[in-house]
Amino acid sequence: MIDLREILLPNIPDDNEKREISEITESLISGIRQILARDGINATPVLVGSTAKHTNLKNADIDIFIVFDRKFSERQMESIGIRIGHEVLPDGIERYAEHPYVSGYIRGRKIDLVPCFRIESNTRIISSVDRTPLHTEYVLTHLDEKRRNDVLALKLFMKSIGVYGSEIRVQGFSGYVCELLVICLGSFQKVLERFASQKGRLVIPETTPLAAKYRSPVVIEDPTDSSRNAAAAISLENLSIMKIESRLYLHSPSKSFFTKPQQEKPLPYKDRGTCIRIVTLPKPDLVDDVIYSQAQRARKILVEHIVDTGFHYMDSELYVGNEIEIMIETESATLPGVTRHVGPPVDTPNSMAFIMKWKDGKSVRGPYVIDDRICIDAPSVARDIETAIFSAFSGANIGKNLDPVKGKARIIDPSGSDTAYMVLGKFYSRKIHL
Amino acid sequence: MIDLREILLPNIPDDNEKREISEITESLISGIRQILARDGINATPVLVGSTAKHTNLKNADIDIFIVFDRKFSERQMESIGIRIGHEVLPDGIERYAEHPYVSGYIRGRKIDLVPCFRIESNTRIISSVDRTPLHTEYVLTHLDEKRRNDVLALKLFMKSIGVYGSEIRVQGFSGYVCELLVICLGSFQKVLERFASQKGRLVIPETTPLAAKYRSPVVIEDPTDSSRNAAAAISLENLSIMKIESRLYLHSPSKSFFTKPQQEKPLPYKDRGTCIRIVTLPKPDLVDDVIYSQAQRARKILVEHIVDTGFHYMDSELYVGNEIEIMIETESATLPGVTRHVGPPVDTPNSMAFIMKWKDGKSVRGPYVIDDRICIDAPSVARDIETAIFSAFSGANIGKNLDPVKGKARIIDPSGSDTAYMVLGKFYSRKIHL
Repeated sequence: MIDLREILLPNIPDDNEKREISEITESLISGIRQILARDGINATPVLVGSTAKHTNLKNADIDIFIVFDRKFSERQMESIGIRIGHEVLPDGIERYAEHPYVSGYIRGRKIDLVPCFRIESNTRIISSVDRTPLHTEYVLTHLDEKRRNDVLALKLFMKSIGVYGSEIRVQGFSGYVCELLVICLGSFQKVLERFASQKGRLVIPETTPLAAKYRSPVVIEDPTDSSRNAAAAISLENLSIMKIESRLYLHSPSKSFFTKPQQEKPLPYKDRGTCIRIVTLPKPDLVDDVIYSQAQRARKILVEHIVDTGFHYMDSELYVGNEIEIMIETESATLPGVTRHVGPPVDTPNSMAFIMKWKDGKSVRGPYVIDDRICIDAPSVARDIETAIFSAFSGANIGKNLDPVKGKARIIDPSGSDTAYMVLGKFYSRKIHL
Repeated sequence: MIDLREILLPNIPDDNEKREISEITESLISGIRQILARDGINATPVLVGSTAKHTNLKNADIDIFIVFDRKFSERQMESIGIRIGHEVLPDGIERYAEHPYVSGYIRGRKIDLVPCFRIESNTRIISSVDRTPLHTEYVLTHLDEKRRNDVLALKLFMKSIGVYGSEIRVQGFSGYVCELLVICLGSFQKVLERFASQKGRLVIPETTPLAAKYRSPVVIEDPTDSSRNAAAAISLENLSIMKIESRLYLHSPSKSFFTKPQQEKPLPYKDRGTCIRIVTLPKPDLVDDVIYSQAQRARKILVEHIVDTGFHYMDSELYVGNEIEIMIETESATLPGVTRHVGPPVDTPNSMAFIMKWKDGKSVRGPYVIDDRICIDAPSVARDIETAIFSAFSGANIGKNLDPVKGKARIIDPSGSDTAYMVLGKFYSRKIHL
């Protein structure tokens, strides 16, 4: 049997860190209060996120929301919010998620200052960020200290197996989902037992009408808004991994399920008897979620085009570092020289037009008949993978912020050199935590 | 408008040939009668086939059946039939279809002497060969001279576009089917109009219960046995070709639809940017139908195995000459070095066994999760096409008469030389008659 407290100890804040977080938080909140009073603005600074809910692991960010009265316009709320942010975080930079916000560091700790609107439970919201203060309140009133440790253990477990985080890069379980799982199911152990035995989708509560409304693999009704699925971000893959790892853990519990996952590291090309190419794109200066969703779209367009062109797609990988790296693996680097065009069924009038079009030696072979279709063999148009990758991007819009830079895309054949790439490291080492 | 008589004239027997056929036939029949009388055997020689029905094109075979009383056993019928055959055709050789028979040449003309049993219309038969004399009688009583010319034109048309002949090599329209089509539909022109406008299967008469019983593309009730589909041999491909060519002919009639199809000729390898291999097998000394059905089976086994192995199959071709030549075309000559094994769904108990089996670095990569399945990458077993072709035959029974000689199979890469092969000629020139 694993002693969870023993596992948690090195991973949660010690007294020094707790004091430091308090000091930073209090100084920021009082600083903001003073500005609000000085400028006569009807708004309240609120600590949210894991530090507010006492479910923070070591080195957690501090998230402070500046909650504005609804009499402000969205524009006012945003511009005042940003101004205050810069005032209390002089080195902070502006980022953009649903609202713009200011992000910076104090004593090495990441601080986010986010303006939002004040709302009540189960009311219509302007943006989902506005709900965050309600989540904080709900968790504070529903989690006692013992169960906060269960949440911490669950977060640690999920981090270790790579399914923690609702950002688009991960598509995993958010901190709030971890908290709801423990609140609803009772403990770390009970949460894992549920995943281990769960077949198909996970729906909590089982009677929620959201299950019929949404097709997502995990549906957890948000107690602060019964119309919202708090688990909408979670991919089928991450649900599957959580089921498997829960079973593995319950079968033989071990501390290894709580150790940090292996650090992603760059690797050079390794021959798998396949064709591997890396496409790089400059990374626009935007929040990860925006970049990731566009980079994933670019990857999807690339893969679909490669398949449409006739290449036999095997796998792909995405990494966003200083650049966007998309890796694609196909069975071979070239297509056959001819492609069969299957024409219309013989019983349709179009079949005669197809024959007429191709009759005078315009094809490599045919027209000929297979079963009830007319076919011809035509020369393949683009035969090499580079041409296919190039035309994938030139023909499609790959996203608002990537499309303008797609002219700077580079296609790299990594097989010729020892250069290591993060995307190759991620690709070659794909493996569940065992 | 095409004058069919003008087209037929050079393709049907002139008076000399007619006289020659009569002489040969009469001499054979009287020779057989004498032997039967001499030996006191209750049997009758009957001229059958196209020369009996006056629907013979130039240089037709002469088919004579020796029709035995049912009091003989099958064994007696066959052995006596063969003995008589050898007596009247001293250079004849024994062949085997449904019964054994004797085949030889007189004055350069092919003669088949076939023993069979006497049966009546719509009675149970011992073998389908026994029905042939009834077909002769039916056609003689239902086709007048004018419509015999329609049959001849139809045969000529079908020969020209390559769909004439019910042998397994062709899977096309038999002479008897041509005769039934003209009898039922009225004329050459009406037969083509029917094919040109036909959607889906061709069923004659439309009310026949055989249509529900058999799935063949063409169903024509045999008037001498209402339970038999006289058109069972015809492939969907040949029905499709007949529909297309009928439309092309009716749209712009031309003599070219009655010229002999281009002679099949050997061709050397021509690069299509694909992988082409030829497998040759010794040809057993059997009738074509038996060899073809086994060779087609061998081709099917080969193609299925190649696909199962992971190669991307493009096309194949079969030619039976002095040897059996099977050609297979794939996109490339090698497989990628790794293959993804998609394991059981995460929700099944087997998924854990799969993980345990592959966990300790036994795979090239993984186990990893895709959606709700566990996967691993394993090294591909046989990577080159030669190995795959070789293992296709070693693992399967490729037919009663081919299996004993499969050890003598040769796998040829034709790209290295200028050697011409019939199977390549057939493959490269596949094209409907235009």
